[in-house]
Amino acid sequence: MKKVKAAVVGYGNIGKYVMEALESAPDFEIVGIVRRDAKNVPDELKNYKVVSNISELEGVEVALLCTPTRSVEQFASQALSMGINTVDSFDIHSQIVDLRKNLGKIARENNAVSIISAGWDPGSDSIVRALLEACAPKGITYTNFGPGMSMGHTVAVKAIEGVKAALSMTIPTGTSIHRRMVYIELKEGYNFNEVAQNIKNDAYFINDETHVMQVEDVDNLLDMGHGVNLTRKGVSGKTQNQLFEFNMRINNPALTAQIMVSSARASMLQQAGCYTLIEIPMIDLLAGDREELIKHLV
Amino acid sequence: MKKVKAAVVGYGNIGKYVMEALESAPDFEIVGIVRRDAKNVPDELKNYKVVSNISELEGVEVALLCTPTRSVEQFASQALSMGINTVDSFDIHSQIVDLRKNLGKIARENNAVSIISAGWDPGSDSIVRALLEACAPKGITYTNFGPGMSMGHTVAVKAIEGVKAALSMTIPTGTSIHRRMVYIELKEGYNFNEVAQNIKNDAYFINDETHVMQVEDVDNLLDMGHGVNLTRKGVSGKTQNQLFEFNMRINNPALTAQIMVSSARASMLQQAGCYTLIEIPMIDLLAGDREELIKHLV
Repeated sequence: MKKVKAAVVGYGNIGKYVMEALESAPDFEIVGIVRRDAKNVPDELKNYKVVSNISELEGVEVALLCTPTRSVEQFASQALSMGINTVDSFDIHSQIVDLRKNLGKIARENNAVSIISAGWDPGSDSIVRALLEACAPKGITYTNFGPGMSMGHTVAVKAIEGVKAALSMTIPTGTSIHRRMVYIELKEGYNFNEVAQNIKNDAYFINDETHVMQVEDVDNLLDMGHGVNLTRKGVSGKTQNQLFEFNMRINNPALTAQIMVSSARASMLQQAGCYTLIEIPMIDLLAGDREELIKHLV
Repeated sequence: MKKVKAAVVGYGNIGKYVMEALESAPDFEIVGIVRRDAKNVPDELKNYKVVSNISELEGVEVALLCTPTRSVEQFASQALSMGINTVDSFDIHSQIVDLRKNLGKIARENNAVSIISAGWDPGSDSIVRALLEACAPKGITYTNFGPGMSMGHTVAVKAIEGVKAALSMTIPTGTSIHRRMVYIELKEGYNFNEVAQNIKNDAYFINDETHVMQVEDVDNLLDMGHGVNLTRKGVSGKTQNQLFEFNMRINNPALTAQIMVSSARASMLQQAGCYTLIEIPMIDLLAGDREELIKHLV
């Protein structure tokens, strides 16, 4: 089998799990890892080429972008300009349409494919939401997250003065409404009540029920499990009360990474352009003979 | 908005619900209904053209085939030969690959599109199964049906000598294993125990735990609600114990009909050929502006 030549850009949490998913896939070959500091090579990467710029790697067909979300456009633009496909898990929902437009232009100009927002939300949850609208066009879908750690909210807490370490947990209370449970270690010389109030006033928290607690050691609370409960009650044709529910309990970065790798596979089958996962046939995400997949899954 | 011109072929249970779903869709126009007996026009069809052959209708772009599963290939072949797209809910899992091959050839020769097995299983469940394999490539998926009426099993019971009326209910007992609860009215002069034994020995039932009960009036038991509980426990990359679950409780023919109509819409966007739903991007199933859909769903 001809293997797809992949590069991993960024080696944080997601990057580590993307390496595992690539190593476990039957149809991928890892050409190398791109890190800001290419001299910093942890033991588990000793057998791989580690570089500081993707241009130093040869023959890359698809780059899996495991950088912070705000750097995705820059790294994707560079790779696409070189004719390399890209996959990311860009997660700022309100900016996805613009990112798709910008990367789409570069992708088409360079005969490359970009699949964006290919994590679990946006990502696999988006597919479920689209499917359920096809099943019941009228109705309301609720996406309930957690219990689990919110990366974005945790970063927002850490940015607040007086916070030494933080964890923001997302707790679903139904109908897409969430409680925020925030655990912090306080820096010396700061007043807990003031810091807690500043957190509650932050744009990330001001509209949610937020509880802030002081703890001795945030690290002891960290767990990368997460979950979703997605429901739709709607109308098929003229028939009311069609009920749908999707649940998952998962290791968060492991699922994100797996979906990115499945999407990297799909990128090899699309025409030049930029796509979200709801624009990709499901079968393209899977390894193996198409007729066998149809026999087994349909 | 230019509306898609649709014909409904067959006016049984599914056909009635397909009419409702077409009437409720913003982007379809019903050109006519094809019935074996075109002179038999029920009140609710008085405003529609009812014919006995699709060739009597003009300008049809897509035919929704609501015939028995075993007649699908014949009706699809005729429509595709005329350059008309087709959609069906063909549900004999073991014959889907062959049907796809046969109709694919005719579709490509006539620049038409056929979307097959576009109900809920095969259909929307197939999409969920494919998505979950993309999320966790290693693991086991269990599809648990019901409680609900099995059309196929009910027909099989009715074919057994001595059975006047029948209902076969599918009861999930987990891990894709099902109990069959069969309710029958007995014809005069037959022995219940013998008939019950013949049902249990039928190919449809011989491998399942089957209970047969005699009732006065099967019609009083009929309800078209059905359900699915689909689970997968699998591995993302090298991370074990990723848990997924999809549940629905639905009116069976209403959901089948809605998915067929959504698929008819998608047929207008595909290149000539024959497709199962896992080969179609989710967004193509939905009405409306694509960027708006992405904004709202991704």
